[in-house]
Amino acid sequence: MDQQLSTRIMNAVDAVFDDEVAFLSELTAHPSTRGNEQSAQDFMASALHDRGMEVDRWQIDVDDIRDMPGFSPVIGDYDDAVNVVGTQRAEQRKGRSLILNGHIDVVPVGPLDMWDTPPFEPRIDDGWMYGRGAGDMKAGLASNLFALDALSRAGLKPAADIFFQSVVEEECTGNGALACLQRGYRADAALIPEPFAEGLVTAQVGVLWFQVHLKGLPTHVAYAGSGANAIDAAIPLIAALHELEDRWNADDCKHPDYAHIHHPLNLNVGKIEGGDWASSVPAWCVFDVRMGLYPGQDIEALRDEIEATLQEAAQTNAFLRNNSPEVVYHGFAAEGYALSEDKSVTATQAIGALEGAHTHVTGTALEKMAITATTDARFFGLYADTPALVYGPKAEAIHGFNERVDLDSVRRVTQTTALFIADWCGVVEA
Amino acid sequence: MDQQLSTRIMNAVDAVFDDEVAFLSELTAHPSTRGNEQSAQDFMASALHDRGMEVDRWQIDVDDIRDMPGFSPVIGDYDDAVNVVGTQRAEQRKGRSLILNGHIDVVPVGPLDMWDTPPFEPRIDDGWMYGRGAGDMKAGLASNLFALDALSRAGLKPAADIFFQSVVEEECTGNGALACLQRGYRADAALIPEPFAEGLVTAQVGVLWFQVHLKGLPTHVAYAGSGANAIDAAIPLIAALHELEDRWNADDCKHPDYAHIHHPLNLNVGKIEGGDWASSVPAWCVFDVRMGLYPGQDIEALRDEIEATLQEAAQTNAFLRNNSPEVVYHGFAAEGYALSEDKSVTATQAIGALEGAHTHVTGTALEKMAITATTDARFFGLYADTPALVYGPKAEAIHGFNERVDLDSVRRVTQTTALFIADWCGVVEA
Repeated sequence: MDQQLSTRIMNAVDAVFDDEVAFLSELTAHPSTRGNEQSAQDFMASALHDRGMEVDRWQIDVDDIRDMPGFSPVIGDYDDAVNVVGTQRAEQRKGRSLILNGHIDVVPVGPLDMWDTPPFEPRIDDGWMYGRGAGDMKAGLASNLFALDALSRAGLKPAADIFFQSVVEEECTGNGALACLQRGYRADAALIPEPFAEGLVTAQVGVLWFQVHLKGLPTHVAYAGSGANAIDAAIPLIAALHELEDRWNADDCKHPDYAHIHHPLNLNVGKIEGGDWASSVPAWCVFDVRMGLYPGQDIEALRDEIEATLQEAAQTNAFLRNNSPEVVYHGFAAEGYALSEDKSVTATQAIGALEGAHTHVTGTALEKMAITATTDARFFGLYADTPALVYGPKAEAIHGFNERVDLDSVRRVTQTTALFIADWCGVVEA
Repeated sequence: MDQQLSTRIMNAVDAVFDDEVAFLSELTAHPSTRGNEQSAQDFMASALHDRGMEVDRWQIDVDDIRDMPGFSPVIGDYDDAVNVVGTQRAEQRKGRSLILNGHIDVVPVGPLDMWDTPPFEPRIDDGWMYGRGAGDMKAGLASNLFALDALSRAGLKPAADIFFQSVVEEECTGNGALACLQRGYRADAALIPEPFAEGLVTAQVGVLWFQVHLKGLPTHVAYAGSGANAIDAAIPLIAALHELEDRWNADDCKHPDYAHIHHPLNLNVGKIEGGDWASSVPAWCVFDVRMGLYPGQDIEALRDEIEATLQEAAQTNAFLRNNSPEVVYHGFAAEGYALSEDKSVTATQAIGALEGAHTHVTGTALEKMAITATTDARFFGLYADTPALVYGPKAEAIHGFNERVDLDSVRRVTQTTALFIADWCGVVEA
């Protein structure tokens, strides 16, 4: 790309950046936790419509996707799960088509008193925007949108079709991105600006969620010895799961992309509930676990290993021996994905285009990283033969309190994205 | 008491027993868990009113009782906490006055699918009545009431004042019984037909409830190593509390009344909640604990010991070292109580009267027992110098599933109670 064109595009990003920050603030104010994404999706659909895109807004139907590879089991229906895709068709298709993907759902905020300011009242302080989802990943959605705006502002049109996806369910299943595949959206590459500090994700772990349901034998605590405490019973099971985690993180188990990472696969007991009354021996306890897995690792085999681990640990508990823990799968059944293993020409070219844009904007080489989380990239890479570039701004405390995103980083990512689009899709004068 | 009078009274109990069972069934159908006792209290107030008693129905005011000995801390107010006392005054006061006390509150039912039939749809099967609260202790309330009905049916009137108390809060604080003291109700003895299988409770443990609040350092689970999991952090604290429990149950710590009991003081983690999302390192965890203590043991000293135990255990956790677990006290701060230590003439006479009645009805000696639970008896015994006899029917699975009470036992307890009233208060022909 000639210097004049890239300068023109980067300046255009600067020109729209105040609007981008305002947009990001308004988007972050929508409390789009799982099941509550509608207002944020309405906001996205309006923004796409205002820009002249064809807008496809649909409710996900579990029956449409449940038999597809990559589907994660869900509890209940998807009455409240709405995807939005805007299509911007090229008049002349000269370049390669592109999916710009981001997720609208955010994770729960946790106890409000642990936030310095309310999580859905975004604020800017010292170059950071604070708010639940500001980083993960509404800044990415804003970047995707304003990269297109900047091209337009610069008097340019992409010379290939662009599909702008705002999906739900990234934080628990990925079924939102899967539903886009089911609906037929395909392109030559995908860009997902998840907040990984302007590095390119070349490998991501898989994630398996499961719930362990324990029963106890309730009784008045006066006769606790004759009961069986379901909360106490959880403790050796959790310990056994952490031992399994240790084994998976041993050096001889590691995927090559993770060889340099001390502890790539985290097992997290993220939620627990049990019992009703301090003076009753609790009859039940349920805990939710997230486990990571390597690219290439088989989910079914892992499930078997987890269940065997739990059953073996249950043998230490007299009551659980005859009342086996029940394992319920809902949420992530996500395979790992390594872009690094995609040796196709398309992937090589896409990575090259991103590297060029990144270096032009930042003056530094593009860092490539294996991450210990999952993203929706797996759907494109594993199930649609489409290289998926995960590259987004710097954020901190994602899933934590006082989540924040670095606005200078958002600006650079928007510039890189705009340059990448211009290179990958090509541009024509508007 | 002459044989003719006792036979007349026992026959009268038989005559009203079908009505008693019907009353118990209707009372058990009221789902009077804490905060939801009003309809059951209305039902009790009507029953007392219909029998010509003066009915005192009042809402407990925490400010009235918070400075009284025996008060247990509460969270929130008592907008929904209503006591009912019916007073039946003697025309001629020749005998000793009596409080007939019972609690209307029942503990939560737990998961409904673990009940064979719905907990608030009482049913009778093979001589047992099933239902939450049927045993603990609505059968006792019914027994108190129908013992009076039987005397009336037999053409007799107690020759001393009777105070019939239906109180709330027995299962969590005892503040209902305390409020009766505050309101001025006093008598020469109290009878509380808690379901201890027709034995006389001569010692009861104290009970302390506390909540442990833990904070974590939340983060995306991808970076779990940089976070601090509040659920994992609870595990060593629970273990430390169980070690404390072991020390308290060592032989050299035991109260003499409990010397023969293997494990008198139960520590129960009865409830736990923590975290919001499987893939977020949980920022918080709260667990509720019940601990027993011996008669004579000081509650403040125990609190200190518990807090020291938790703080010491917290030192094993890098995050908790600087973010101490917070202990919150609400619910039971109940001292132990030993009727066996009450050597007064009144106590001796009251026990003697009950023994006589019990033996007359059952043909067996009265078993005396030290129990590993608390009851409202402590308020009368410790803070009002009134011997409190805890003596009630046989029940099973109290606080558990398919709670049930033995109806033959209820009949015998009603007979024993009627005979006890006739002896203790005296009777005159109506």
